[in-house]
Amino acid sequence: MEFFKGIDKIEYEGSKSKNDLSFKYYNPEEVILGKKMKEHLKFAMSYWHTLTGGGMDPFGEQTIIRSWDTLNPMERAKARVKAGFEFMEKLGIEYFCFHDKDIAPEADTLEEYFKNLDEIVDEIEKEMKRTGIKLLWGTSNMFSNRRFVHGAATTCNADVFAWGAAQVKKALEITKRLNGSGYVFWGGREGYETLLNTDMGLELDNLARMLSFAKEYANEIGFIGQFYIEPKPKEPTKHQYDFDSGTVIGFLRKYNLDKDFKLNIEANHATLAGHTFQHELRVARINDMLGSVDANMGDTLLGWDTDQFPTNIYDSTLAMYEILMDGGFKEGGLNFDSKLRRASIDVEDMFFAYIAGMDTFAKGLKIAAKLYEDKVFENIIKERYSSFDTGIGKKIVNKEVGLKELSDYALGLKEIKNTSGNQEKLEMILNQYILG
Amino acid sequence: MEFFKGIDKIEYEGSKSKNDLSFKYYNPEEVILGKKMKEHLKFAMSYWHTLTGGGMDPFGEQTIIRSWDTLNPMERAKARVKAGFEFMEKLGIEYFCFHDKDIAPEADTLEEYFKNLDEIVDEIEKEMKRTGIKLLWGTSNMFSNRRFVHGAATTCNADVFAWGAAQVKKALEITKRLNGSGYVFWGGREGYETLLNTDMGLELDNLARMLSFAKEYANEIGFIGQFYIEPKPKEPTKHQYDFDSGTVIGFLRKYNLDKDFKLNIEANHATLAGHTFQHELRVARINDMLGSVDANMGDTLLGWDTDQFPTNIYDSTLAMYEILMDGGFKEGGLNFDSKLRRASIDVEDMFFAYIAGMDTFAKGLKIAAKLYEDKVFENIIKERYSSFDTGIGKKIVNKEVGLKELSDYALGLKEIKNTSGNQEKLEMILNQYILG
Amino acid sequence: MEFFKGIDKIEYEGSKSKNDLSFKYYNPEEVILGKKMKEHLKFAMSYWHTLTGGGMDPFGEQTIIRSWDTLNPMERAKARVKAGFEFMEKLGIEYFCFHDKDIAPEADTLEEYFKNLDEIVDEIEKEMKRTGIKLLWGTSNMFSNRRFVHGAATTCNADVFAWGAAQVKKALEITKRLNGSGYVFWGGREGYETLLNTDMGLELDNLARMLSFAKEYANEIGFIGQFYIEPKPKEPTKHQYDFDSGTVIGFLRKYNLDKDFKLNIEANHATLAGHTFQHELRVARINDMLGSVDANMGDTLLGWDTDQFPTNIYDSTLAMYEILMDGGFKEGGLNFDSKLRRASIDVEDMFFAYIAGMDTFAKGLKIAAKLYEDKVFENIIKERYSSFDTGIGKKIVNKEVGLKELSDYALGLKEIKNTSGNQEKLEMILNQYILG
Amino acid sequence: MEFFKGIDKIEYEGSKSKNDLSFKYYNPEEVILGKKMKEHLKFAMSYWHTLTGGGMDPFGEQTIIRSWDTLNPMERAKARVKAGFEFMEKLGIEYFCFHDKDIAPEADTLEEYFKNLDEIVDEIEKEMKRTGIKLLWGTSNMFSNRRFVHGAATTCNADVFAWGAAQVKKALEITKRLNGSGYVFWGGREGYETLLNTDMGLELDNLARMLSFAKEYANEIGFIGQFYIEPKPKEPTKHQYDFDSGTVIGFLRKYNLDKDFKLNIEANHATLAGHTFQHELRVARINDMLGSVDANMGDTLLGWDTDQFPTNIYDSTLAMYEILMDGGFKEGGLNFDSKLRRASIDVEDMFFAYIAGMDTFAKGLKIAAKLYEDKVFENIIKERYSSFDTGIGKKIVNKEVGLKELSDYALGLKEIKNTSGNQEKLEMILNQYILG
Repeated sequence: MEFFKGIDKIEYEGSKSKNDLSFKYYNPEEVILGKKMKEHLKFAMSYWHTLTGGGMDPFGEQTIIRSWDTLNPMERAKARVKAGFEFMEKLGIEYFCFHDKDIAPEADTLEEYFKNLDEIVDEIEKEMKRTGIKLLWGTSNMFSNRRFVHGAATTCNADVFAWGAAQVKKALEITKRLNGSGYVFWGGREGYETLLNTDMGLELDNLARMLSFAKEYANEIGFIGQFYIEPKPKEPTKHQYDFDSGTVIGFLRKYNLDKDFKLNIEANHATLAGHTFQHELRVARINDMLGSVDANMGDTLLGWDTDQFPTNIYDSTLAMYEILMDGGFKEGGLNFDSKLRRASIDVEDMFFAYIAGMDTFAKGLKIAAKLYEDKVFENIIKERYSSFDTGIGKKIVNKEVGLKELSDYALGLKEIKNTSGNQEKLEMILNQYILG
Repeated sequence: MEFFKGIDKIEYEGSKSKNDLSFKYYNPEEVILGKKMKEHLKFAMSYWHTLTGGGMDPFGEQTIIRSWDTLNPMERAKARVKAGFEFMEKLGIEYFCFHDKDIAPEADTLEEYFKNLDEIVDEIEKEMKRTGIKLLWGTSNMFSNRRFVHGAATTCNADVFAWGAAQVKKALEITKRLNGSGYVFWGGREGYETLLNTDMGLELDNLARMLSFAKEYANEIGFIGQFYIEPKPKEPTKHQYDFDSGTVIGFLRKYNLDKDFKLNIEANHATLAGHTFQHELRVARINDMLGSVDANMGDTLLGWDTDQFPTNIYDSTLAMYEILMDGGFKEGGLNFDSKLRRASIDVEDMFFAYIAGMDTFAKGLKIAAKLYEDKVFENIIKERYSSFDTGIGKKIVNKEVGLKELSDYALGLKEIKNTSGNQEKLEMILNQYILG
Repeated sequence: MEFFKGIDKIEYEGSKSKNDLSFKYYNPEEVILGKKMKEHLKFAMSYWHTLTGGGMDPFGEQTIIRSWDTLNPMERAKARVKAGFEFMEKLGIEYFCFHDKDIAPEADTLEEYFKNLDEIVDEIEKEMKRTGIKLLWGTSNMFSNRRFVHGAATTCNADVFAWGAAQVKKALEITKRLNGSGYVFWGGREGYETLLNTDMGLELDNLARMLSFAKEYANEIGFIGQFYIEPKPKEPTKHQYDFDSGTVIGFLRKYNLDKDFKLNIEANHATLAGHTFQHELRVARINDMLGSVDANMGDTLLGWDTDQFPTNIYDSTLAMYEILMDGGFKEGGLNFDSKLRRASIDVEDMFFAYIAGMDTFAKGLKIAAKLYEDKVFENIIKERYSSFDTGIGKKIVNKEVGLKELSDYALGLKEIKNTSGNQEKLEMILNQYILG
Repeated sequence: MEFFKGIDKIEYEGSKSKNDLSFKYYNPEEVILGKKMKEHLKFAMSYWHTLTGGGMDPFGEQTIIRSWDTLNPMERAKARVKAGFEFMEKLGIEYFCFHDKDIAPEADTLEEYFKNLDEIVDEIEKEMKRTGIKLLWGTSNMFSNRRFVHGAATTCNADVFAWGAAQVKKALEITKRLNGSGYVFWGGREGYETLLNTDMGLELDNLARMLSFAKEYANEIGFIGQFYIEPKPKEPTKHQYDFDSGTVIGFLRKYNLDKDFKLNIEANHATLAGHTFQHELRVARINDMLGSVDANMGDTLLGWDTDQFPTNIYDSTLAMYEILMDGGFKEGGLNFDSKLRRASIDVEDMFFAYIAGMDTFAKGLKIAAKLYEDKVFENIIKERYSSFDTGIGKKIVNKEVGLKELSDYALGLKEIKNTSGNQEKLEMILNQYILG
């Protein structure tokens, strides 16, 4: 059965095309810096937003209704598998990501739930074989069910912790079985609502314990994918422990988990924490923790996770720039953790939205590659910090001096001469690269 | 010479007093939980806002004019010493804090600047002896002068780094000489304006180097006070590296500085980072890094550091609660990093403002002490997390289980029963303690 | 059938009571400024949050489950009527508010839906007669159903406008039948998602048309209750047309509707627009448009409508102060548009939360009444602006001068002397009134 | 004397130029939609940021030092005139804007101040004649001086009101003398710091009085330029009365000033109020109040007015689109109310920054013109709202129906069919126009 009738494989037609169902900038086989576009970008479909989302918001019911919505739960789950793979094939997307709960219905007992999962994983496996599409990462949803009202790893209820552990175990097994190249922890309820009833110390220790347990079990079963933490500051809980890259890296260091985890950076989570997308990528990069990316965009004038499809060329350019500077993706990729606007109710909108996101990142990659090749910013930075390459600067870097020597040096200085930061010029140059 | 003529020593007159120049709640000798109020609170005057501030803002000139403003720089500096100590005596404040630049005028050369500093430190020392008032902490201002336009420890200019180092050395020596119980780093320019010209990795490494140099020099000269970092997220630079407690603790761990530094938490910096004051104190507390406090409040509907005198009873109560839970201040105290509103132009306003802040914290202490004694929240928390004291919970905490055992346990669970978080009830109880 | 077994009528027990199910400050019959507390406060139960809410959020399913949740739609609707009135009786709440959709299930056709409504309105009417409880205001939900995806009055689809009009007509008729003293428009979808596809001019004209139609129909059927607009800035749509008080008042003036509508001010909507609750009340008050109040509170560190039960004494005091200054409520009252935290899952939490809110406003009223009686702020304000009572100031106010006369006057001034704003002193005095 | 030695007239060199001191997109004589680029854009230099700014911020002293900074006040003022006109000539900018205070030093008396102003206006007039450069608008700075600590038109001190009136009178006379095509009111201190001491009603009435006085005096002296209000929400005061376009328009309507004033929209003020730049322009446009534009950009992750040079192509495109839809500028233009970053300390940075801003708007104009010509969004909007062109929709628009007829119509509807909003597609198309 074909789910997206009337929509053919989306082809690259170039920037002048008037065909809304074509790529204007994404040309998967085009070689950029010696690598194919598609290998640079490693686009992934998010199972949840794409196949289970419906446009609901806190003030309104489902607006987006798909053909599979009327089926019974297991049939619906199977239809979604087929629809998802058809969708990826038509877009030429080679990866996907999922939570356990996205792919199969929960059940009254864990046992039954796991059976449901296994049944659907069979279907997914078949489709993966048929199409060659790969699993970028798996994860477990430990935030939607009411059981996790007080958290999963950071719950006050040991039974709930155990339940979460069981889900992680199962999701890890599935991810391994499907050859997933990574596994993500996003702590949707790992935070607090009010400090008045919260033992923050115990909760954080327990969070670290859950991560250790997961890593140990992965070793046991031979899962060699990369583990990731996905930072987010303050939704749904008032305070989420994985606030931002800086916080998460500090947390991992505290519990000696920093060798075992990298970060899955989401654009909209960055802005909710008061950072740019590029900032979060940069922080991860300089700590050697840039793992994977959730590609979307937020609305910085709104205070919640809008998870919009990314269509801002500045963001995609600077993100791809950081990724290129990091040597490109290894296990990670660009997962569209993006959802259709509530009012984008047509099936075609799914395609328009992915095309918009893929084109924006493709064009961003091309611009970033040019910036990278021309060493536009790198040369400026090299020059700007060159006083640390020789003389007193070098001694500082090598810690061959202390306050005393530095003070003596400063006392001997005739004048201090700073150079301009030239921010406006740099923004102008960036614009020239973007606008052509 | 008396600077605040007509204003006598501010006395405690109780909550019914109609005398605006009296304390309504702050009764310094009153014993709370076995310790005098003044020993719990350890109020400090901030030299800068109190003695050098003038109500300027980005859109307007000085509005607050003091009698010393017409003097020449060194005379003005000396008058401020006298005025400051008179002010503290009249308020019964036993500590103060300062930046090098607050106390003496900068000069054309470092040498001259240091001479100016020494001359004023002599005056301060005399006043300290005369009054018994102590130095809570010292610091160096490495952000106002144009020299630090690109940062001090994180500058791109090695000469500027050296200059900053010289200032830190001098400020450390002064702090030691004045028996300061601590030394603070607030990195007013340690951040970036745009990533396009920034080598974040080098900048952070250099920041850590400066901190190491300071610690080493302190050891060398026998300064045994506590070192602090003061987190702040995004002012004046677009991104300040010491974003919040979580970020700073992670940074200190990365560079093995976490044993040498604690945090100086500022209320308004907490809210600018998207956190409550209590949150930042809690994070510091559970990491054993709660050092000292900058007492003020911000306006959460405004996006900049308003540094208002703290008059919110919820904030002062919950702050004092965290401090009591931490065992009270050791080297630290409550420094009023608070400035008069631009329109509070009278000399009396200085007193009103400090009285307002001191009373708010005094009343907050009394309420917090009652909450602490009654174990209001502690008992609730103990009960709430009790499932981790026995059975499977205890095994989790002791890491005697792994995913497999937890999964087996979860598969055997009949049902999961969560208890209510009772947030509204807890807020009601808190109100009862506050409102009497 | 009793829904809240084991919970008796909530009684006033005073501020020392340890009984969580008692009022500490709300003493309904106590006379304040010549009027009973309950007449000042006019508390109302919100039908939606109280009876249909379940703790859902964008990341999680229902956590709060009531006994009626398993019944079929019409039986559930009837049970809610009984439960709601039992709840109000036990709390001594004398008013309620509802949307059409809260009380009866929607149906496939409008006709059927209206029949459902009528059937439930019969039940409500009976309970109102039995208990004496009154309807504060009614409204129509024109935002949850997918039909309103592009708005109701501001939709791009004329059929949807008509549907909305039919709902308003019905809701008006119900409100009249139940003797409601008001009718509210909250435009949950009256805004836009993107300007790229929006005809803002037509949408606003149509919004005004809907309001005119409603007013005309009210006149026709003899509904004499007060009409209100409830401002909110940006949720659920990116931009809601009824942004804040200032915007709404301007809109009403533009379309000559300012005589027919007042405002229903919600605390959390105020803060989302960047204003304090008091600000919005003040703006409404000075424009003679303060109608009714949605009592809740938001979290100013979070960017969405948290609709928390109001437990902040500053907010309730200053709100009641504005209401007293406005002469007290006329047709309006204090509706608890507040919802339980997702983790407050017990039936008792409903009571705790309302008690917390009612006590906070009762105490706020008492403090505000004292401020009002003592003319604390009024005397200060009178003095502060007294230069406009005589001389040149009076001439300005009377427009007896122009720029020329004023310039001549200014040229003749020797000096300008401003007085202090004394903000910190005023905050201290406010604290004294609050803390006793 | 030449102030910008070594910098020649900036020429258009096209988008491939590597010359940082050339225009890449701004080709002043190029004809777009039948009009020259320079006539569409009407760029203006802001006297203040460009000639008097120095990179100060609340935490740091002046970093940007110009050759004229060492001169005495009147000589400095004269040098700035020369420098400003040289700067405009070299950039090909044909307009400028100023506050009284920007051009001449304040003095001890008003009389002396006015004399200073007259002396400098003579110089400006000469330069205007020499160069043909025109005055876009004038204004009076009634916020920097300490005298305005409580406001100017909204002060509590009638003498200050009078002083402000004298300044407005003088600034109006100067603006008339210099043939200014407009006069702006930006109420930098027209707001409040705390409601506790504020008579909001009187303050707003007085604000309206000042505006009336100005309009009347303009009539008297025959000044026929356009009056503008510039909205801004919350800086420097806690709440500025001219919050945003919606608020200002409502205010003007209340006082019957809406025929006499238009709006001067600033990009960064829009975002501080929680709106996009385009939103504020649109609101002004549909109310026929779009007057002039302050071109800059803010940082939506920061909470204060950063006044950055505008380099975001989305903003400039959508702004120019609204301006084209409004029929282009009449009396207004694009004033760069933008300041150099604190670290952009070179003279060249002045040029880089203006070039960046002018290029961004030039390119934005070209893209907007193409969108306008192709009726990209207009056709979509026309189709989207077409149900209001016939049938029931037309009757709604013509108010030929009421709730009763609409309800009857709705009861007869079989189903409601909404079309997709296609937001992602529209964003993709916009990207295609931008990226080429």
